[in-house]
Amino acid sequence: MKNYVYNFGGGTADGDGKMKEVLGGKGAGLAEMSKAGVPVPPGFTISTEVCNIFFENGNKVPKDINDQVLVGLAKLEKQIGKKLGDPKNPLLVSVRSGAKFSMPGMMNTILNLGLNDVTVEGLAKLSGNPRFAYDSYRRFIQMFGQVALDMDMEKFDHIFDSRKKKAKVKMDTDLTAADLQAIIVDYKKLVLQDTKKPFPQDAHVQLAMSRDAVFRSWWNPKASYYRKMEKIPDEIGTAASVQAMVFGNIGDDSATGVGFTRNPLTGEKEFWGEFLINAQGEDVVAGIRTPEPLADLQKLMPEAYAQLHKITESLENYYRDMQDFEFTIEQGKLYMLQTRNGKRTGPAAVRVAVDLVKEKLIDKREAVLRVAPAQLDQLLHPVFDGPSLKKLSEIATGISASPGAAVGRAAFSADDAVVMSAKGPVILVRKETTPDDIHGMDVARGILTAVGGKSSHAAVVARGMGRPCIVGAGSISINEHGKQFSVQAKGKQVVVKAGDWISMDGATGKVYLGQASTNDPDPNSAHFGTLMKWADEFRGKFGVRANADIPRDAKAARLFGAEGIGLCRTEHMFFAEDRIPLVQAMILARDEKTRRKALAKLLPMQKKDFAGLFKAMDGFPVVIRTLDPPLHEFLPKREDLMVDQARFPHATKAQKKEMSEKYRMKVGDLKKGIPELLHRVEELHEFNPMLGHRGCRLGITYPEITEMQARAIFEAAAEVSKKGIKVIPEVMIPLIGSVKELEHQKEIVVRIAKEVLTKAGVKNLHYMVGTMIEIPRAAITADEIAREAEFFSFGTNDLTQTTMGLSRDDYTKFSGHYESIKVFKADPFASIDQGGVGKIIEMAIKLGRSTRPDIEIGICGEHGGDPSSVEFCYRVGMDYVSCSPYRVPIARLAAAQAALADKTESMRTA
Amino acid sequence: MKNYVYNFGGGTADGDGKMKEVLGGKGAGLAEMSKAGVPVPPGFTISTEVCNIFFENGNKVPKDINDQVLVGLAKLEKQIGKKLGDPKNPLLVSVRSGAKFSMPGMMNTILNLGLNDVTVEGLAKLSGNPRFAYDSYRRFIQMFGQVALDMDMEKFDHIFDSRKKKAKVKMDTDLTAADLQAIIVDYKKLVLQDTKKPFPQDAHVQLAMSRDAVFRSWWNPKASYYRKMEKIPDEIGTAASVQAMVFGNIGDDSATGVGFTRNPLTGEKEFWGEFLINAQGEDVVAGIRTPEPLADLQKLMPEAYAQLHKITESLENYYRDMQDFEFTIEQGKLYMLQTRNGKRTGPAAVRVAVDLVKEKLIDKREAVLRVAPAQLDQLLHPVFDGPSLKKLSEIATGISASPGAAVGRAAFSADDAVVMSAKGPVILVRKETTPDDIHGMDVARGILTAVGGKSSHAAVVARGMGRPCIVGAGSISINEHGKQFSVQAKGKQVVVKAGDWISMDGATGKVYLGQASTNDPDPNSAHFGTLMKWADEFRGKFGVRANADIPRDAKAARLFGAEGIGLCRTEHMFFAEDRIPLVQAMILARDEKTRRKALAKLLPMQKKDFAGLFKAMDGFPVVIRTLDPPLHEFLPKREDLMVDQARFPHATKAQKKEMSEKYRMKVGDLKKGIPELLHRVEELHEFNPMLGHRGCRLGITYPEITEMQARAIFEAAAEVSKKGIKVIPEVMIPLIGSVKELEHQKEIVVRIAKEVLTKAGVKNLHYMVGTMIEIPRAAITADEIAREAEFFSFGTNDLTQTTMGLSRDDYTKFSGHYESIKVFKADPFASIDQGGVGKIIEMAIKLGRSTRPDIEIGICGEHGGDPSSVEFCYRVGMDYVSCSPYRVPIARLAAAQAALADKTESMRTA
Repeated sequence: MKNYVYNFGGGTADGDGKMKEVLGGKGAGLAEMSKAGVPVPPGFTISTEVCNIFFENGNKVPKDINDQVLVGLAKLEKQIGKKLGDPKNPLLVSVRSGAKFSMPGMMNTILNLGLNDVTVEGLAKLSGNPRFAYDSYRRFIQMFGQVALDMDMEKFDHIFDSRKKKAKVKMDTDLTAADLQAIIVDYKKLVLQDTKKPFPQDAHVQLAMSRDAVFRSWWNPKASYYRKMEKIPDEIGTAASVQAMVFGNIGDDSATGVGFTRNPLTGEKEFWGEFLINAQGEDVVAGIRTPEPLADLQKLMPEAYAQLHKITESLENYYRDMQDFEFTIEQGKLYMLQTRNGKRTGPAAVRVAVDLVKEKLIDKREAVLRVAPAQLDQLLHPVFDGPSLKKLSEIATGISASPGAAVGRAAFSADDAVVMSAKGPVILVRKETTPDDIHGMDVARGILTAVGGKSSHAAVVARGMGRPCIVGAGSISINEHGKQFSVQAKGKQVVVKAGDWISMDGATGKVYLGQASTNDPDPNSAHFGTLMKWADEFRGKFGVRANADIPRDAKAARLFGAEGIGLCRTEHMFFAEDRIPLVQAMILARDEKTRRKALAKLLPMQKKDFAGLFKAMDGFPVVIRTLDPPLHEFLPKREDLMVDQARFPHATKAQKKEMSEKYRMKVGDLKKGIPELLHRVEELHEFNPMLGHRGCRLGITYPEITEMQARAIFEAAAEVSKKGIKVIPEVMIPLIGSVKELEHQKEIVVRIAKEVLTKAGVKNLHYMVGTMIEIPRAAITADEIAREAEFFSFGTNDLTQTTMGLSRDDYTKFSGHYESIKVFKADPFASIDQGGVGKIIEMAIKLGRSTRPDIEIGICGEHGGDPSSVEFCYRVGMDYVSCSPYRVPIARLAAAQAALADKTESMRTA
Repeated sequence: MKNYVYNFGGGTADGDGKMKEVLGGKGAGLAEMSKAGVPVPPGFTISTEVCNIFFENGNKVPKDINDQVLVGLAKLEKQIGKKLGDPKNPLLVSVRSGAKFSMPGMMNTILNLGLNDVTVEGLAKLSGNPRFAYDSYRRFIQMFGQVALDMDMEKFDHIFDSRKKKAKVKMDTDLTAADLQAIIVDYKKLVLQDTKKPFPQDAHVQLAMSRDAVFRSWWNPKASYYRKMEKIPDEIGTAASVQAMVFGNIGDDSATGVGFTRNPLTGEKEFWGEFLINAQGEDVVAGIRTPEPLADLQKLMPEAYAQLHKITESLENYYRDMQDFEFTIEQGKLYMLQTRNGKRTGPAAVRVAVDLVKEKLIDKREAVLRVAPAQLDQLLHPVFDGPSLKKLSEIATGISASPGAAVGRAAFSADDAVVMSAKGPVILVRKETTPDDIHGMDVARGILTAVGGKSSHAAVVARGMGRPCIVGAGSISINEHGKQFSVQAKGKQVVVKAGDWISMDGATGKVYLGQASTNDPDPNSAHFGTLMKWADEFRGKFGVRANADIPRDAKAARLFGAEGIGLCRTEHMFFAEDRIPLVQAMILARDEKTRRKALAKLLPMQKKDFAGLFKAMDGFPVVIRTLDPPLHEFLPKREDLMVDQARFPHATKAQKKEMSEKYRMKVGDLKKGIPELLHRVEELHEFNPMLGHRGCRLGITYPEITEMQARAIFEAAAEVSKKGIKVIPEVMIPLIGSVKELEHQKEIVVRIAKEVLTKAGVKNLHYMVGTMIEIPRAAITADEIAREAEFFSFGTNDLTQTTMGLSRDDYTKFSGHYESIKVFKADPFASIDQGGVGKIIEMAIKLGRSTRPDIEIGICGEHGGDPSSVEFCYRVGMDYVSCSPYRVPIARLAAAQAALADKTESMRTA
């Protein structure tokens, strides 16, 4: 029969450190430590397979496996010279969970198992410390009740607290042995009353029930949620390790603690952790007593400290990574309870990886693989200063849309934000943002909205700007007109008015009242720079570009290592305060002549922007997308106009003034102007703007728009290249569905390019015309489209929306439910839906290359900055990814990891 | 060198009747007739290839081909004994166009070519009729000017009319030879003035220019438009036939006419046509003189008539189809100028095809292939009585959305329509319709909207109901509140008030003021029934089902030959007047309990509907789709609520009463109720409803809705099957994108089915659970989805929208432009876009069958009734199509033709 139980302890072990899949991280660590001669209390691990068998078998462990458990127990009893349930010399054990991947605190643990009304007396005698024995017993009943019997923790607390009141003591440690005995009596009564069965006195029954409870805790809501968050598969299950208890709470010569071999916040090499004298493990994390820093242990127990330091250092050397360890000192003797690779912050991850290379523990390749790309995010945005944040009260939580800490005064309109930003930092608070708000978002330190999801306008634009952003903070009720919001926080109504200070953490989605201080991390720190240099070495020729619309963003992109611009959204230039009236005039034009007149005024502005981009990207390509959004996005909202039209006859002077500003009309013109404007807006109104008159469809119906844009691009290119700067424009036509559309638009671009470049006398300026692949028909007919397209860029935002028939803005209404029942593996707007959208992408690449083998292929959707999507893009053979400037380092690292995985894969198959 | 010129005449010909591709229909007909001994004036045909060469060669005929033309001309001259340009005995010719497919009247013709200032005198002498000669010359100058010199027709007319005024005559025939000579002088002056060149006197130059003009007319706007409409390829080009002139205008022993061998309106076998004595061809169609019925020719010229009758009869026998012929009688001698298969109405097409089988000219197979499926439409809807319509004035034209003639009083709201329909027929006139209008559409004889396209709500629903419908009649300006519309018609403002009679033709899109009478065609007429029987024989097991939501439609569907229901949209039942409050209560419910309560009230209603469908479809399957549209469709419009909220403080009593009715609230409740309702509507508001919270996404977030619907289905099924009626429910889950969604919904359906059927004691009731394939992700992952789905039904409306990223409602805004530059081969919402959407469909079928080889596959989108789409569905291996009941015969015929084509194909490849 297969072996399901693995003993360890006393310098030997059945398993070893590599068997994480079978023994879980904890079990493997214990086996490895035991083998390495590290003092660990002996025990045995029931393998992860048993967990799955347990669930398949109706939440029962089959008899044959249980027999193996009994054998393991017998071995343990023999090794330690104690027997489970022995009245005189009882063996006490802990039962702990441990899966392949670390899930700290998510599953259950039971300590002091083996105590009952009889053995507790044995323990009292043996330890010479009855109070310790009774305290251990009451802890066991409490834990067992909660974990194995699903009882309410609060009921135990209530008994405990009542007794403290009765005894008139403040600290738990002030309770006497008699007090604890009384508590035990009450605890057992509670168990009988709640479960209709007495507290099990048979230690073997206790063990079986505890083991099962640990398995069951695999499906704890918090464990399930954690797995989802960390993308840990549900199928791997947890092991259960049964280990002889050692006691840190047996007297003042005992202690317990946790630590790291390096500082997990900064990565600095220091012995970092905390401990408590005369305490059991959970006391350290429970926060009832304040633990002491590990350094102090040196003074109190110098020998144990030295041994601990030596052991953990050798563990780090063995595992070649920073260790997170737990230990207990029982009457002066050190026991290691656990060691594992420690969780760390982004900055620490980078520093540890780089330092380990310097210390020759790992090589560069491994260092690059060690840092999770997403962790770099923390190095790229300001972070809160912890202590200053603790003083503030949290008032709301929304969806984390763009990370980073921001502090500023609340502003309730884009215009207000601009005015207020002259005097100090501002946070823009809006129900939702629209393209009209761009100038306000631009000056704000952070953006907070009440509605919308991770892919709402606010979220997308904020990420592009690297601006911290929280969206969908549903609990705040915004009165935009009254310039304030109210929110229920801890049962109290809080009102935040314009000018009040708020602090927000884009990474956690939390909003605080008041002014916290923040720290700017240094993205070009030595360690970070070193790691990125290594990553780029492994990345090879797979490119990383940035999405940037204006020269300032382009410069930031270069700073973060972008090798070109993968997407310049020309329309973002249109929303600037000085341009929007011209854009509106262009839209409201009733004939081509008037439209051309308005376009002629926009031309020099666009040209200037493009010139700025070309200069910033000297020698790198710049992908410029022609106008994309439906024209109504540039006009006032239809419903605003309808309501104002209805309000107008009874409007006050102030209201009329407001309308006049909003619609850029004289007050006297409103009466005629509002209905006229509404009429045009109605004409442009669309039922599904996402599927409407936009993208190349605009350039086809109004070729003069494409002409103007092409002219601006090539006039700028000619001008800049004459200054000796290398310009590589790639003109991208959006929303192509049929090659005929591309033919039409390409003809215009090529014609204008020829005309402009000839006139300017510029030769040898290499440019390309290509298309976004963002609707399924384009992907399916990519072979036809590649006849005209010199490059493809996957617009995975829209491609996801159309392929899945799912509007990213509307998905937020039910995404919570969808995530809870796991319809999709991950949020398809955050990570490419490889099983669906990914297949379409692969098909398009294959078809495109069948027609034009050297076609340049990239991605410019939001997914370009998502590590797993970057890996996908590498794997399917794209030439580059493009993402927001602030995610470029993440993409560089993810690409390097993909390249390394690919190399490993080819080595394996070679 | 290749032969490009084909002579004919005098009982022989270089070509024959099968060479339509080379000679065009006309040229092939002339060759064939000539060979068959039919008296045709001799001539030669320049092949269609020359047309293409002409365009490729910069609109010039190359010299070597021109040399062939000269050889052809020489042969003709020899045959007829006259020479082109001979002053004494001049040869006169016509030059006519003629492509492979008939394009009647779309291209140009030139007659009397060869006349000049000299030859006209020769003709005058030769014919002994100077007036005839001058009239022929002035006609030639006029035609040549217009066709070959691109001159303005009106200028010639002006000269002609001035001369008539001067001569004080009314009829053209009253002009004297001298008058005509004066006209010729003025005409030539006009030519010189307009073209800066004299009218060409050289007959060979005339011929070359006319030939080129005929080729150029291939790209006449009307010709291009006609090809687009009839799906004739642009590449085939036209031939040009040069033929000796014969003259029907040489005296009262001459005549010209056109005719059909059968009545082209009814198909009855009768000699049908008209003629004019002493006239040339174009006079018959020009309408200046009223032609006489062909029967009268028998009295006037019995010999010629008898010969004509005999010849046309033998031509019909030869071509085995009804002939459309042109003839001229020159001084008593009959000449056939053209014969071709005649255009005919739908009823005539059916009758002719069936009669020809009876007459043993063709077989059943050919009869089925002879009728264009789309033509059947005319047999399935009422048609106007022509004379009664002529008395009315046409006031507007919109987009033909659903064919058929309708006459009724104008009603401006659905409620008004219901009230008015009790007293007489009603036409519902709306700016656009919404699901709220269903009850009004249901009672209306026709529906007219000012906005929307062929796929707007009004159009789709009306077609489903078989109700005539015109949409997007942009010129009408509707005042829904004032219950009237106004329109500019022929420069006059016409106001139509509620209750005024209007007539509308859904097939032409025309709206008339007043009350026309209509005729109900008999869809079960003997001929029609016979043809459909034959079609079904060839169709084999490929099924045709109908989309029907209510029992009445289901009965109609059976009558039209549907073999089941392919789509029952359960939500259409929700819009009924008595149900909508319950539906709204369900939507407004804040918790599951309240929602279940509202659903419980809907259950018996849905059950009754389903029972009705099952009864009507005894033994045939009924596909029932669970709730599909986003919930906000059932609530009042957001912008209405916003406007009314703004209006409320100053609203008059009447306005409040109106709001109270609109929102189903007491007047006293409005103040609080409107904002509350608006709040909920805002919560449900979506940016892109098409891609929003709808379809299975509703059933997943509110499983109780699916439960209720499943319960209604299976309770109805149990009840009906107990009565001995065979029930085959197929439960269809809409908008599936991932197999997980289907798993979720299928579990509910199967669970409820089991529970209900067990409780009812019904055994052996076979049902299936399947899905619509309507978003690309479903198609791409069809192999996974087929693990759960027992059938697929392609929802090609939405699949087209998502695959093409194109909203059908919003497409109408720029579809005109797209059609004009031919971005897509046809309207993708009318015919499946085979190059894009079709590929996705083929992929899905292949993947689906790879998992579940016997999976039932059909289509339920609007395309299911489009003949070319039906052919596609057959070809890619679907099991059935489903369409609106009134299109079932069309689909049956199209399917039969597809099956026959397939058989022919396999015979060819075998």
